[in-house]
Amino acid sequence: MTGARIGVYGLGTMGSALALNLAEHGFDVAVSNRETEWIAPFVAGAGALRDRLTGAETLADFVAALASPRTVLFMIPSGPPLDAMIDAILPLLSPGDTVIDGGNADFNDTRRRSETLERAGLHFVGLGVSGGAEGARHGPSMMFGGSGQSWAQVHPMLEAIAAKFDGDPCVAHLGPDGAGHFVKTVHNGIEYADMQIIAELYGLMRDGAGWPAPAIGAVFDRWATGPLDSFLVEAAAQVLRAADARTGLPMVDVIRDAAGQKGTGRWTLIEALKLGQSANTIEAAVGARAWSSETATREEAATLLAGGTQSAAALPEDTLQQAFLAARIIAHAQGFRILSAASVEYDWSLDLARIAEIWRAGCIIRSALLDTVAEAFRGDLPHDHLILAPAIRDRLAGSIGGLRQVVAHAAGAGCPVPCLGAALAWYDTMRQARGSANLIQGLRDYFGAHGFARTDDAGDHHGDW
Amino acid sequence: MTGARIGVYGLGTMGSALALNLAEHGFDVAVSNRETEWIAPFVAGAGALRDRLTGAETLADFVAALASPRTVLFMIPSGPPLDAMIDAILPLLSPGDTVIDGGNADFNDTRRRSETLERAGLHFVGLGVSGGAEGARHGPSMMFGGSGQSWAQVHPMLEAIAAKFDGDPCVAHLGPDGAGHFVKTVHNGIEYADMQIIAELYGLMRDGAGWPAPAIGAVFDRWATGPLDSFLVEAAAQVLRAADARTGLPMVDVIRDAAGQKGTGRWTLIEALKLGQSANTIEAAVGARAWSSETATREEAATLLAGGTQSAAALPEDTLQQAFLAARIIAHAQGFRILSAASVEYDWSLDLARIAEIWRAGCIIRSALLDTVAEAFRGDLPHDHLILAPAIRDRLAGSIGGLRQVVAHAAGAGCPVPCLGAALAWYDTMRQARGSANLIQGLRDYFGAHGFARTDDAGDHHGDW
Repeated sequence: MTGARIGVYGLGTMGSALALNLAEHGFDVAVSNRETEWIAPFVAGAGALRDRLTGAETLADFVAALASPRTVLFMIPSGPPLDAMIDAILPLLSPGDTVIDGGNADFNDTRRRSETLERAGLHFVGLGVSGGAEGARHGPSMMFGGSGQSWAQVHPMLEAIAAKFDGDPCVAHLGPDGAGHFVKTVHNGIEYADMQIIAELYGLMRDGAGWPAPAIGAVFDRWATGPLDSFLVEAAAQVLRAADARTGLPMVDVIRDAAGQKGTGRWTLIEALKLGQSANTIEAAVGARAWSSETATREEAATLLAGGTQSAAALPEDTLQQAFLAARIIAHAQGFRILSAASVEYDWSLDLARIAEIWRAGCIIRSALLDTVAEAFRGDLPHDHLILAPAIRDRLAGSIGGLRQVVAHAAGAGCPVPCLGAALAWYDTMRQARGSANLIQGLRDYFGAHGFARTDDAGDHHGDW
Repeated sequence: MTGARIGVYGLGTMGSALALNLAEHGFDVAVSNRETEWIAPFVAGAGALRDRLTGAETLADFVAALASPRTVLFMIPSGPPLDAMIDAILPLLSPGDTVIDGGNADFNDTRRRSETLERAGLHFVGLGVSGGAEGARHGPSMMFGGSGQSWAQVHPMLEAIAAKFDGDPCVAHLGPDGAGHFVKTVHNGIEYADMQIIAELYGLMRDGAGWPAPAIGAVFDRWATGPLDSFLVEAAAQVLRAADARTGLPMVDVIRDAAGQKGTGRWTLIEALKLGQSANTIEAAVGARAWSSETATREEAATLLAGGTQSAAALPEDTLQQAFLAARIIAHAQGFRILSAASVEYDWSLDLARIAEIWRAGCIIRSALLDTVAEAFRGDLPHDHLILAPAIRDRLAGSIGGLRQVVAHAAGAGCPVPCLGAALAWYDTMRQARGSANLIQGLRDYFGAHGFARTDDAGDHHGDW
């Protein structure tokens, strides 16, 4: 008996799409699910791919259906449910088998689970999967963290099902244990920022120019080719042009303005802070989602607090486009800076250029910019700071003026642009050779005797206040 | 034998100041220190207070010198050193004794230590102490977290040594276990923001107007009376006017622009994120300190990246003053919002008005504004949002226009104002009855089938994209 090459446990949106993608690429797949009644209909509904799928209702049957060394891919919520499943399946597996978590896990949990499975002689892989349901079905971008042996065992399947950019599969072995999930977390942080930038520009056009949603969709459509070419811009155009069947209104006009979040944006920020970093553009995006849920407060504040003092009439489309590009670059620069710091801290030797490459197709933040980012990291990049790379500097030179105009305009007009404003503030801080933190150090020494460094002398000094 | 009312372990800047303050108020104090050679000179140098101080070189002698039930105040670094000392002293103490940590501890550690000591029948207090060396010696603000019994035992001493505001001691029993240290952490987060606001305004005057430090100090001096009346504004005035004895230059001009941090700002943000909150004004301040350390990058970027397009000539002093007040209010609003969320999460029933009251004197952020904040929380405050209180709204109405002007000016001029910009972005977000997160929800449903709420219907919906 040969058995299935891989077992997929969890037949939700992502799990079922990945199982079909694997089957389509010629791999025999065992499938199972906690709600066992989902299994047979899933297999039956797989059409021509049915022959490559083996449904298993018990964990024992599921494991027995796999070829050795076994590969099990869990596509279930990554918290306590995953720990429970690992506990349950562990006695059924053998040394050399590989367990993959394809969900969005906190990389600290992935490191812990890796240790546990290693002690049992098994391999544990934290696999970041991006691309939504469509991507999972027809080609996701995948960020692999695990042992070299597990990569050797699994990569032919992953490379087969991955999205391709000019033929190059968007999957890579990024490092051990939590590296893949960490990179996926930061990917999502950048995604938060990109979506918030889109929302802020939409807000400026809606509230400033007073344009209806489809007209704003047409703007995003024009932006979808050129320097802003990206999945999220195309998606925004489609979403903005969609009509609600029930009311005939633009779909976005009947959607409540309270955004959900599942934790990866928050994790990005917490890990950045622990690394002594700050990603204020991503923070603004996570914050904006949190504030969006405070509807009652906002409605009350709207009637009580003073608004802008300048006209909110929208800026030229070209200016908004520039602001978008500059802020997108800065969000990426901050995300990659976190990756760079984590790579040092956890001794991962992350290949930042390769990460940019596998994000060029399949994932939610895929964009023309990432091709430039990959090139930048292949070149000589001082301090790992993307904003110092020649090609990136060129793009910033042509776009930062637009960002300045939009932030200044929004401040006067009373339009909220937390993400765009944060991006500009970081940019201007990072290009200030002599900042103003000397006064902070003076204050800290004045009241707390914390000491300071002098510009003209080594060592620790105190003021004679 | 009666013994000392309290033992102070740790004779660094803060510990020695508190010991002297206690002695001055008539309490007998046992003192000890890891480096035992510090003890005798400290007691000998205490002048007339010497008779109230008992030096003890061993932990056994230190504990033996204390009256029962004993009160031990640790003024040492709050990480592993404190855990080691607790382990060492525990066998020497008896049920009913109280151990106080007066350092800046992560409140999660304080909760853990409280549990450990409770199991041994002892009380553990997390005591936030603010005011720097001067405050500790002559009247700090103190935030007490612990049992009612330990408060009963300790409060006469704390009330005696605390700063007084119109006779009211700036110390309060805020809640159990980690409540005091949590409130102190958020106090420091607000302190980070206030200092960063000062630094940004200093930067605008220095780089925009080209004013020398003493002239900027004179501005802060004028601000030190009126609505910005506060310790930090006075301190900034003094620091900016101080001259360097070695070079004759203004002191701040020879201090390096790289700011240190010890963790409380970062903790504030991590806890805010865990509570689903965002404090972007505090985040900007923590971020600015992190970025200030990247001197080499900033120096290189300064020569490579495009700057502002508008004149940087400084705005009128009055406009800058308004911007300061608005941003200070917003930083406080965000800090108190975190306290409110933590109070619910940890079931602390924090008295926000009382917290504002004990911050009116002794601590680093003491200011005229806190009196208004205390009043606001004594009144009927919808959603615990400071910006909705009538007196605060009045102050915002008179100052937000200045913040708009400064943020718009800085964006055009290329001056970094991360903290001021974040404050304005939050303000404008919170007064937007209909935000732009509807587009984010549309996008999330488009690619991830996450669903959304409709404005006209309950339940979870999906778009027909």
